Amino acid sequence: MAPVKKGIIERLNSGEVVIGDGGFVFALEKRGYVKAGPWTPEATVTHPEAVRQLHREFLRSGSNVMQTFTFYASDDKLENRGQNLRITGAQINEAACDLAREVASEGDAMVAGGVCQTPSYLSCKSETDVKAIFKKQLDVFMKKNVDFLIAEYFEHVEEAVWAVEVLKTSGKPVAASMCIGPEGDMHGVSPGDCAVRLVKAGAQIVGVNCHFDPMTCVKAVKMMKEGVEKARLKAHYMVQPLAYHTPDCNCQGFIDLPEFPFALEPRILTRWDMHEYARESYKAGIRFIGGCCGFEPYHIRAIAEELAPERGIVAPASEKHGMWGAGLEMHTKPWVRARARRDYWENIAPASGRPKCPSMSTPEGWGVTKGHADLLQHKEATSSQEMKHVLEMQKKSKSST
Amino acid sequence: MAPVKKGIIERLNSGEVVIGDGGFVFALEKRGYVKAGPWTPEATVTHPEAVRQLHREFLRSGSNVMQTFTFYASDDKLENRGQNLRITGAQINEAACDLAREVASEGDAMVAGGVCQTPSYLSCKSETDVKAIFKKQLDVFMKKNVDFLIAEYFEHVEEAVWAVEVLKTSGKPVAASMCIGPEGDMHGVSPGDCAVRLVKAGAQIVGVNCHFDPMTCVKAVKMMKEGVEKARLKAHYMVQPLAYHTPDCNCQGFIDLPEFPFALEPRILTRWDMHEYARESYKAGIRFIGGCCGFEPYHIRAIAEELAPERGIVAPASEKHGMWGAGLEMHTKPWVRARARRDYWENIAPASGRPKCPSMSTPEGWGVTKGHADLLQHKEATSSQEMKHVLEMQKKSKSST
Amino acid sequence: MAPVKKGIIERLNSGEVVIGDGGFVFALEKRGYVKAGPWTPEATVTHPEAVRQLHREFLRSGSNVMQTFTFYASDDKLENRGQNLRITGAQINEAACDLAREVASEGDAMVAGGVCQTPSYLSCKSETDVKAIFKKQLDVFMKKNVDFLIAEYFEHVEEAVWAVEVLKTSGKPVAASMCIGPEGDMHGVSPGDCAVRLVKAGAQIVGVNCHFDPMTCVKAVKMMKEGVEKARLKAHYMVQPLAYHTPDCNCQGFIDLPEFPFALEPRILTRWDMHEYARESYKAGIRFIGGCCGFEPYHIRAIAEELAPERGIVAPASEKHGMWGAGLEMHTKPWVRARARRDYWENIAPASGRPKCPSMSTPEGWGVTKGHADLLQHKEATSSQEMKHVLEMQKKSKSST
Amino acid sequence: MAPVKKGIIERLNSGEVVIGDGGFVFALEKRGYVKAGPWTPEATVTHPEAVRQLHREFLRSGSNVMQTFTFYASDDKLENRGQNLRITGAQINEAACDLAREVASEGDAMVAGGVCQTPSYLSCKSETDVKAIFKKQLDVFMKKNVDFLIAEYFEHVEEAVWAVEVLKTSGKPVAASMCIGPEGDMHGVSPGDCAVRLVKAGAQIVGVNCHFDPMTCVKAVKMMKEGVEKARLKAHYMVQPLAYHTPDCNCQGFIDLPEFPFALEPRILTRWDMHEYARESYKAGIRFIGGCCGFEPYHIRAIAEELAPERGIVAPASEKHGMWGAGLEMHTKPWVRARARRDYWENIAPASGRPKCPSMSTPEGWGVTKGHADLLQHKEATSSQEMKHVLEMQKKSKSST
Repeated sequence: MAPVKKGIIERLNSGEVVIGDGGFVFALEKRGYVKAGPWTPEATVTHPEAVRQLHREFLRSGSNVMQTFTFYASDDKLENRGQNLRITGAQINEAACDLAREVASEGDAMVAGGVCQTPSYLSCKSETDVKAIFKKQLDVFMKKNVDFLIAEYFEHVEEAVWAVEVLKTSGKPVAASMCIGPEGDMHGVSPGDCAVRLVKAGAQIVGVNCHFDPMTCVKAVKMMKEGVEKARLKAHYMVQPLAYHTPDCNCQGFIDLPEFPFALEPRILTRWDMHEYARESYKAGIRFIGGCCGFEPYHIRAIAEELAPERGIVAPASEKHGMWGAGLEMHTKPWVRARARRDYWENIAPASGRPKCPSMSTPEGWGVTKGHADLLQHKEATSSQEMKHVLEMQKKSKSST
Repeated sequence: MAPVKKGIIERLNSGEVVIGDGGFVFALEKRGYVKAGPWTPEATVTHPEAVRQLHREFLRSGSNVMQTFTFYASDDKLENRGQNLRITGAQINEAACDLAREVASEGDAMVAGGVCQTPSYLSCKSETDVKAIFKKQLDVFMKKNVDFLIAEYFEHVEEAVWAVEVLKTSGKPVAASMCIGPEGDMHGVSPGDCAVRLVKAGAQIVGVNCHFDPMTCVKAVKMMKEGVEKARLKAHYMVQPLAYHTPDCNCQGFIDLPEFPFALEPRILTRWDMHEYARESYKAGIRFIGGCCGFEPYHIRAIAEELAPERGIVAPASEKHGMWGAGLEMHTKPWVRARARRDYWENIAPASGRPKCPSMSTPEGWGVTKGHADLLQHKEATSSQEMKHVLEMQKKSKSST
Repeated sequence: MAPVKKGIIERLNSGEVVIGDGGFVFALEKRGYVKAGPWTPEATVTHPEAVRQLHREFLRSGSNVMQTFTFYASDDKLENRGQNLRITGAQINEAACDLAREVASEGDAMVAGGVCQTPSYLSCKSETDVKAIFKKQLDVFMKKNVDFLIAEYFEHVEEAVWAVEVLKTSGKPVAASMCIGPEGDMHGVSPGDCAVRLVKAGAQIVGVNCHFDPMTCVKAVKMMKEGVEKARLKAHYMVQPLAYHTPDCNCQGFIDLPEFPFALEPRILTRWDMHEYARESYKAGIRFIGGCCGFEPYHIRAIAEELAPERGIVAPASEKHGMWGAGLEMHTKPWVRARARRDYWENIAPASGRPKCPSMSTPEGWGVTKGHADLLQHKEATSSQEMKHVLEMQKKSKSST
Repeated sequence: MAPVKKGIIERLNSGEVVIGDGGFVFALEKRGYVKAGPWTPEATVTHPEAVRQLHREFLRSGSNVMQTFTFYASDDKLENRGQNLRITGAQINEAACDLAREVASEGDAMVAGGVCQTPSYLSCKSETDVKAIFKKQLDVFMKKNVDFLIAEYFEHVEEAVWAVEVLKTSGKPVAASMCIGPEGDMHGVSPGDCAVRLVKAGAQIVGVNCHFDPMTCVKAVKMMKEGVEKARLKAHYMVQPLAYHTPDCNCQGFIDLPEFPFALEPRILTRWDMHEYARESYKAGIRFIGGCCGFEPYHIRAIAEELAPERGIVAPASEKHGMWGAGLEMHTKPWVRARARRDYWENIAPASGRPKCPSMSTPEGWGVTKGHADLLQHKEATSSQEMKHVLEMQKKSKSST
């Protein structure tokens, strides 16, 4: 076991910035260890070296949180995604804890056990059933003595609240993060109201992760903060967005973009976009700042570098990075040397190299489109009503169980 | 030592497709182990686990070649790039060979020792001096008994020929790869003429790597092939391009793009672009097909998947990938499920999510611009003449030494 | 004088679609008769043949309304814009009426006398002074016996109300159109509230013109309609938008786009965009549908063609146009012939031919940006507060006069 | 008849810049007088006021050449395009001459009678037949005593030579302009060789018009000039390009772009693009500089303004235009006022306002694509061979007649 470190709440209470890690499923998919579609984390058992290495890279980049790679590792999900593995959910979850702890102990990081939304909820299982799913993962986290818990990637605040209620029984600090944008959860509950319900359920940290780009996520967390403050409650705030630009997505996020998940490359954020994101988050009062799908270690490093003055810490990986392009200072070509300056990179509008591609897409599905595409809305009226209908059906069937 | 495998020439002679690996400096820069600017590979000594892991990911993705991570590892370069390390060039090169061999022995891969262009040549050192630099690296490769040798990333055919001449003394198979496009080397020697000179110098495999996007590189290699065939010589062909779209770059490649090296993200190729590239290469008669800067393991896997019918082999990492999006077949949303088909991904024109950015940039520097930007040419006439002047000065000073 | 035709209110009351004309200042600027900057209509006197010809082209394209070319023809504006002409405002206004009447009498069109916002209001002249300005133009319209009156291009509802009050004294039907979008007027009065105030002041037709693209304008008019209906009032609705795509503009419209007014070309709507606009307007219950800056005769014809089934009328200029590309049916190239079909043009996403240009701009000035550019907002906070300050100063100085 | 003015050759010999007019078919299509598809000029008879007005606008903008609006006015074309008019070709041609002369006499302009490629040639009629077609139009031009003759819009140099041979019999100066780009005519004859053949046939002025954007056309004319000079011949040069950006078109020009002819709007050149074009043309030694499809009067004015220092003349329409945005100097908004300067407009990269559209298209048809789209070439190999076959068939059938 690692020596006792400052805990997450202690850090946040003292005003410290806590840097999260990046998303594992997308990063490991590119490296060949996670299958897109199922997105399950059996690699913790089958290829621990790959998971360990990614943890290390995030640690080295400045992360203070090693999230156990237990995304979609609930038993119902593993089964649902057709993983006919001879590996049990418990094995995956335990191995994930061990790997996170091993690397966390190599630096200033905490281990966070994570649960996320379940197929059981979507198929209208009872609160008891869904909670049992979370409890099973929590048992592993307690056995492995993680430092705190995160309930993340919830589209429905009801399920998120259930998760928080289960996790709270542990006595560990609990963070709750939803995969929603400014338009709120899938039943139209606003970010502010979601946050209030989560805080009331016992979450000490609330925020959003995944589904939207950094600026959209920061906006949603700001709305959460406003809601919590208006309700005269107290909380800390976290944000772990995509590393993809999604100005064109609807309320269900990047899943509905036609490029998801195999053609998102042109949307990947640069390190300079990350500086902007880190600064915006900080200015919004968010102190747990990390990433989700699309984040690579250098993205996390950029957050750490932007907030280095506030934190007074330089990440180990910064030994391999000159701030604002300083590494180019000795380039043989004068015009490349001239790029070794902050305003050059702050103002760059990078070309896509794809003249036959557009800059925005039309999202598919039920979602209501954002921004200028108002015309689309009426075209989708029917299907949007359909969605409401489906959700109401679910609700009824749920309440009748 | 690993058991004796089929050699590179044996494979190519039998018509086999040999899959290369991806570029290490860019991939490890994103992971935090290489500094952009110097781009030197001291991580082979300081962080062998990171280098080993990347080798493994490429192997798992289908690579048959583990290139020693010895890029810019000549003594003059290490010194020139200001690496005040207590590590010697020999240590870096030896560690690189050991790592490549260790992973190669885990699968069907060969080890290729690599040298590349030197600062000594550009600062007009003599042929003797430059050859001594290559010889020093070659000594390590012979000591470590690599399977074959690659002289790669040369902008000047003269230096590439010198490298081949040195490497040939080893008796090992030699591949020669230049970082040029269809416009030829920096002195205006055409790809065809470059290839002929390299083959005459003893290279058994010729091709191009880095600096340009896949289609541009394939075009340049085709020109090499035409040149070699016209000269009634024989050779095998290789291509290891960027994983960035560069329709807008000039004859000096992506270095001159304003986005180099820290804002290239929107240009990253998708896996589907890689299918197209692999097919084109194959149709062009190229049989050693790999990647350079920007390639991640999943890009190599895409090449392996495209050519799986020809090769009769499925890469290990394909267990984590459904061909043409098949992994989405069980998605809960019908419109996402509908993406699980080949024609969807073959025809996607992915949006950048960056409406305030252009799709092409104007390259900087001396280079002659390609494509439609003809107007720019005359603006650069002076500096182009300047370049010629500089090159002639170099030539003279060189011939006078 | 032309024979008595059905009046504007009679037409609208009977559910008829009334087609407006396009904007004269932009069209005549391109033809060489209006100066960008001043935008004043002295061409009615100096080059009547050019003004007459443009009227004719709109009539031929289906317009039922010939607006007198009296934009910015108030005495204070003519003086303010530095027009040291030996032509008086009265001469310009009279000539404008004569030209409109001459052409209207050639077809099924009415003459509408138009007034627009004045520099007197912006420089905080009194209600009395501003109303006197409008009265002067109205005198000409009464002398020339126009068919109805339009108060258009108002950024401040207060001034628009004053204009309506003056025009109402004539006994002629009065339409009031503001150059605002969904965010309301420059003091933040919502479109709904603006409309209510205008209707209460006596306007029988309300709507918006200029400053925004068609879909944004239709959205604003919908909001007006909702406001009017909520207030249990009755009105007819009109819309005369830009023929430029402006998804990126702020609350002050296209003036603040960096391309205004000399580089708007890439934003020009196609005729197919106009079909969509006409249909949307119709579906929104708008029955007076026309255009403003950027509209050329073929844009108006497209509106007429889209609504031909509802109107039962084909515009004369349609003899020179095959619906949905039918004119290409006999083209010698089969792939061009294949474009002679509706779905081809309905679905085209036309390329800009400008790979070095972005698809959206960042508006300048005080305005609050729309859509995704939320980040920008905080950067403009100061200047936005400045604007509020300026407006309050104006208010005070005004109320004190 | 107008008073005798300086002739075209006299002007060009003395080094004067002669400014052409813009294309009539596209401009009048937008105004409602020409049908896209047939593109025939019967408006000279049916709507002379519209044709006259457009002539006037070009004259006012600085044009020195009033081309008779006789495009596609050969008898075979009028018949081929299904014009069941009760108007004869002779009537159309005569009316066109009268209108051009009427307006030319109002300023410093010459009348040029124009012929263009015929359907007879494409359907493999004999030289005798094709020449008879040209002769018929020439007879009208002689009767009406035009000032010089232009054979324009030829895709095949053979037919252009025939046209020149016919026109030369008149004793009037003859200009010959092909609608080709740098890749040459439809049989692959290079611009240089085309020019040499035309000069040898008797053309005193050679150049290109239509089909490509300004910079591409200037490039093609440069190649013509090089060819003529290499052959030790003498000629004057003309260029009358599209006002559309076409970086993506193939050797057959904008016809093959998917946007042709009804969605070209985003490609329209700004006045600032025209300044650049005028300067480039001048620097290339071209002295007859005008426009074709897409040109509006303000585009011609921009040419005249750019070359005003060389010409010592300011066009009448410039009274309605402040150079480089000077008309904005008195704008009420400071940020709009700040646009009243040359470097602002010279450097603007105008947004399309179309985030869902690409910046380049893929041309359709047989043509070989330009620039980076090399991949496409092989896809079109078959159809390209088909084209060659068709052309050879034509050749044979022609030579056998």
